[in-house]
Amino acid sequence: MKKTILSGMRPTGKLHLGNLEGALRQWIALQDEYNCFWMIADWHALTTGYENAREIKDNVIQVAVDFLSAGLDPEKSAIFRQSAVKEHAELHLLFSMITPTPWLIRNPTIKEQAREMGLIGGEGEEEMVKINYGLLGYPVLQAADILIYKADFVPVGKDQLSHLEITREIARRFNYLYKPIFPEPQPIIGEYPLILGIDGRKMSKSYDNCIFISDSPDVIRRKIANMFTDPQRIYRSDPGHPEECPVFLYQQIYNQSASAQIKEDCKNAKIGCVDCKRICAEALIERLAPIRAKREELERTPSLLTEILQEGARKAREVASRTMEEVREAIGAW
Amino acid sequence: MKKTILSGMRPTGKLHLGNLEGALRQWIALQDEYNCFWMIADWHALTTGYENAREIKDNVIQVAVDFLSAGLDPEKSAIFRQSAVKEHAELHLLFSMITPTPWLIRNPTIKEQAREMGLIGGEGEEEMVKINYGLLGYPVLQAADILIYKADFVPVGKDQLSHLEITREIARRFNYLYKPIFPEPQPIIGEYPLILGIDGRKMSKSYDNCIFISDSPDVIRRKIANMFTDPQRIYRSDPGHPEECPVFLYQQIYNQSASAQIKEDCKNAKIGCVDCKRICAEALIERLAPIRAKREELERTPSLLTEILQEGARKAREVASRTMEEVREAIGAW
Repeated sequence: MKKTILSGMRPTGKLHLGNLEGALRQWIALQDEYNCFWMIADWHALTTGYENAREIKDNVIQVAVDFLSAGLDPEKSAIFRQSAVKEHAELHLLFSMITPTPWLIRNPTIKEQAREMGLIGGEGEEEMVKINYGLLGYPVLQAADILIYKADFVPVGKDQLSHLEITREIARRFNYLYKPIFPEPQPIIGEYPLILGIDGRKMSKSYDNCIFISDSPDVIRRKIANMFTDPQRIYRSDPGHPEECPVFLYQQIYNQSASAQIKEDCKNAKIGCVDCKRICAEALIERLAPIRAKREELERTPSLLTEILQEGARKAREVASRTMEEVREAIGAW
Repeated sequence: MKKTILSGMRPTGKLHLGNLEGALRQWIALQDEYNCFWMIADWHALTTGYENAREIKDNVIQVAVDFLSAGLDPEKSAIFRQSAVKEHAELHLLFSMITPTPWLIRNPTIKEQAREMGLIGGEGEEEMVKINYGLLGYPVLQAADILIYKADFVPVGKDQLSHLEITREIARRFNYLYKPIFPEPQPIIGEYPLILGIDGRKMSKSYDNCIFISDSPDVIRRKIANMFTDPQRIYRSDPGHPEECPVFLYQQIYNQSASAQIKEDCKNAKIGCVDCKRICAEALIERLAPIRAKREELERTPSLLTEILQEGARKAREVASRTMEEVREAIGAW
């Protein structure tokens, strides 16, 4: 029998190359071998985005189109919106009853996130109790998301490992208190290339340095033309340092066959940054061509997207409601 | 249009005279004038009772029978089990996103409860983060319970006032952030007699000093015969101090017309404790007779209870799902 995988993304806007190379490519590779649930985590988006909740509506559509155009296949997997499967909320509530708050207070990922958002100031655990109750309980909701499908594996970024550890702790605690019905899901940490933003920092929407997978060829050309390059190469005739140049990182991923030659030519000042960027842009545009084509197809038939998400939610609910029957039976209060 | 009321009890076992006089009599008086929702709060019972969750199953039946036999009328009100209306869990999750944890940390009622249960030791707010996440969030769930029916009034005990204040704060915050759809529910604090247990302390299951409304006449006679009385009256010939005697408190409630005479006779040692108790027991038994009769009727047709709870849940869900549509529309993420 196929093992089960769940992963998800918060609908915070268009997906960028970092999301594509860091998560989606891996998901696409997994969907043939595993029974997969790909979730658009709109309730999670409220943990930090409750003040601008209206944006979530468009972002869900955006992410769904990005998922499908990148190659997630609704015939193979359940692609769905978290809030369409109300059972997640019920399991979250039941898990909250057995989750000691100290497990959440100690969570390094949320602490860092809260600090980055300016929600808390200091370092100590006493700071964590200043954030909203729902943000503090993010890992409890995540445990419900994962365990309601009895996922065996969860593809995650390294920064999410501490959340997954809480999921395993909650599974163990439930299994011990009531009945062993949950697996202890293991992470799948992908090997993927580092994608830098056009300013050379980590690609991130909050840095406004992203190339989105939905960007048009012209936008991609302009963004790459504006990219930071090797700061030591001031004149065309200066030798370059490709290993320190964000553009060369892109060449290695999107223009792999030519990248050895480009590296050589850059080091010997045979190729200038302008040409290198033009080549890079065209390579990336070509690589994104199938995604662009699929996107155009989806945009021609908007009802298709709705149908896919509805069908995904139906599939997810089928499993989730079965698990909830087991959960209620195990707890024994019903 | 009738105003709306919600109140509830956690199914922790059989209801006692304290519940009857302190809450149920008031509820029964309210059900003609208001649109009432009476909830058996089984999810709340998990906040502290998650380790013995199986007990909740029987307790729900027990409480439902107590509700109905005491006089709550399913034709007039919705009598239902909280977990049968899953919308409470969804609204709880949405409210968690906008509720600052400090509102919960400062909650004096939960702090006291947690201390009584030995879950926390000290006095400070830092102690509160040691309890389970669901217990900490009890007032958030309670806000969802109340606001999902847009209750205008909530009959509460004085110890619950701080919870209701959090409900109002959550309502205000939601109304401010999104759209003013929620009322700010006001408490109804009943005037009711103090009911002491048979040992003279506050009647409470944890003191094992209760007279239950389902106790048989023989059990009532035995319990009252064993009651503590005026400690200064050692011999039958000693004058009594009825104002310090728990039995006399019962006489005032259950044998009101005769109580002035009994008071007199006790003070003058014209009546002994044994006789006083016998009179008291018979008066109480008589007062509980209609409840007993109704209980026997319910026990003869067990399917009736299920039907009443199902119908109550149906009525509750109808209102709750309508509110949730408004809530989702107000937040704007869907």
